[in-house]
Amino acid sequence: MLAAMEASRARATLARTPALSAAQLAALMEAVGGEPQRVFEPRILRALDLAAPARAFLGAPDEAAIAADLAWLEASGALIVLCTDPDYPPQLAQISGAPAALYVLGSVAALAAPQLAIVGSRSPTPTGRHTARAFAAWFARAGLTVTSGLALGIDAAGHEGALEAGGQTVAVCGAGLDRVYPAEHAALAARIRAHGALVAEFPPGSAPRRAHFPLRNRIISGLSLGTLVVEAARRSGSLITARLAAEAGREVFAIPGSIHSPLARGCHQLIKQGAKLVEEAADVISELNFSVPKEPLRKPQSAPPEAAALDNEYEMLLDALGFEPATIDILVARTQLRSESVASMLLILELQGRVAALPGGRFGRIP
Amino acid sequence: MLAAMEASRARATLARTPALSAAQLAALMEAVGGEPQRVFEPRILRALDLAAPARAFLGAPDEAAIAADLAWLEASGALIVLCTDPDYPPQLAQISGAPAALYVLGSVAALAAPQLAIVGSRSPTPTGRHTARAFAAWFARAGLTVTSGLALGIDAAGHEGALEAGGQTVAVCGAGLDRVYPAEHAALAARIRAHGALVAEFPPGSAPRRAHFPLRNRIISGLSLGTLVVEAARRSGSLITARLAAEAGREVFAIPGSIHSPLARGCHQLIKQGAKLVEEAADVISELNFSVPKEPLRKPQSAPPEAAALDNEYEMLLDALGFEPATIDILVARTQLRSESVASMLLILELQGRVAALPGGRFGRIP
Repeated sequence: MLAAMEASRARATLARTPALSAAQLAALMEAVGGEPQRVFEPRILRALDLAAPARAFLGAPDEAAIAADLAWLEASGALIVLCTDPDYPPQLAQISGAPAALYVLGSVAALAAPQLAIVGSRSPTPTGRHTARAFAAWFARAGLTVTSGLALGIDAAGHEGALEAGGQTVAVCGAGLDRVYPAEHAALAARIRAHGALVAEFPPGSAPRRAHFPLRNRIISGLSLGTLVVEAARRSGSLITARLAAEAGREVFAIPGSIHSPLARGCHQLIKQGAKLVEEAADVISELNFSVPKEPLRKPQSAPPEAAALDNEYEMLLDALGFEPATIDILVARTQLRSESVASMLLILELQGRVAALPGGRFGRIP
Repeated sequence: MLAAMEASRARATLARTPALSAAQLAALMEAVGGEPQRVFEPRILRALDLAAPARAFLGAPDEAAIAADLAWLEASGALIVLCTDPDYPPQLAQISGAPAALYVLGSVAALAAPQLAIVGSRSPTPTGRHTARAFAAWFARAGLTVTSGLALGIDAAGHEGALEAGGQTVAVCGAGLDRVYPAEHAALAARIRAHGALVAEFPPGSAPRRAHFPLRNRIISGLSLGTLVVEAARRSGSLITARLAAEAGREVFAIPGSIHSPLARGCHQLIKQGAKLVEEAADVISELNFSVPKEPLRKPQSAPPEAAALDNEYEMLLDALGFEPATIDILVARTQLRSESVASMLLILELQGRVAALPGGRFGRIP
């Protein structure tokens, strides 16, 4: 009992040790025959090559902080997973710079599930948000866990899409797990904990510092078989996640967009650099080293359900309308439908809220 | 004088000879020491390996058709360029299946100028049309000749953009040059003849048959250093042009678009197959084996001129609006401008016809 408590305290100390790499933690644990409470023996510490801050911390741990960590772990139900534990995520273990320890709220098993990262802009277009959500739902139904960073925008849409499909999702956090960042995602974080996991390498009490986010990003891409970037400006943090994924030998996927849209620039840059261009969720699955289980949660659907309700002529008309406003004359020319038919179909589509009448006798599609 | 007339008649006969490859024409001319009027000698014809239709035609030419060709050549000012002539376009000479002869109206020299093909859908979106025109203008200013197929839609926009910039453009036709196809492009064809060339391998009187268009496409891509596809559906003829360009070792460029736009599908397919993703005209120049002349016709501009007139906050607002409708609240969040400012700026943009008020308090950009 006492030994178990000592082991827990030692694990909390190791998890909080600054500048301790996974390789160093593994060497430490090897040196003590897997008994973490022995790592503080001066003989052990002397024998190993550690960075000065790690040596100093292990030589004289911050007892107050560690006591607070242990209290929070017990109260919250969070777990510490060390890189030497059997349930440390194997994909993450492969990357260079893998974290020595993770704090986890929720399912530790989710971290070992086949994952796809969905990342992107914090202020996406409505279409980008919809795409992230729909793709995430598709991946979840296909049996993939959707991993992201709990940020506003595309990250949140990815988590939500997976949850809505009844799937599993992992959020990698840039702050300690005792605080949800951003705060408005508290309810989302609670759902993620219940249907996946919240994970951080930063000990409880850590603020969401700017420098944390690139570190968080390496865990997002490191946990995942591949990373899909949905919308990203040219200098987006999502491009860091994508670069780290590529460096770790993982697939990078990007969704293209209009050359006039600033939020497509980052994705286009990635495609120019070799990322796979993705038009549908199935494009991702076919590239990944992952096969869809025989009986996925629900049947994967390539299109959002409401699209199926339209009959052919209406679909043709919406296709002809495209994504830029057009006049009835243009639509007649494109569809070969009679102009009276086009006019009445447009009226019905307008009443359904699918099309809007614009100045100059033009009609525009409402996404 | 008589010899010159005989040579002209012989050239017209050779140009009209069916199933005669460039290599066979070159062998014929070699056998007769460059004197075309001698190719009809039975001894010459017997000595060469010709397809049956070519042998039959050269053995007994259709005198009425050739007389009509000669009359048309004289009346129209059209020229015949044989593959053995020094002004046969050198890029085209390199492709397999190069035509033995071309009919040309306008500048034969234009065919030897460095060219970029711009091709795409016959029923593009207004944005696609604008993009083709703006890119063509940019290429023309940079000193490239813009080559396309005189078709409706993207082809026409490419020709027009080059002409508007004071540049040169080449139209490769799928019918005889005595008839403009499509007929509504008669005025455009006249401008192209005056500032470039109209070219066809089909003799005068040839109808625009379906089978002609893939043949025409090989000349478009064959004349050009590279082929840019602007908008194309998944089964577009433009993809044939792109494939032929790639097979001829030329660069293929494609402009991405929304994954929800059917006219982006063809371009996305090309990018997946290795085409270069293009966001701006400069992307193309940097890939081509072509350097911008020291003093281009006019200074290349990367943005259409009207964009420059907007001041920064309006630009920021339009950027924030993106290409999907958004509410004032969303725009405030994206721009950090005060909501009253956003509302009044939207009103001004609406009055300028740049933005439209949509149902649900949303605003949409008008391209």
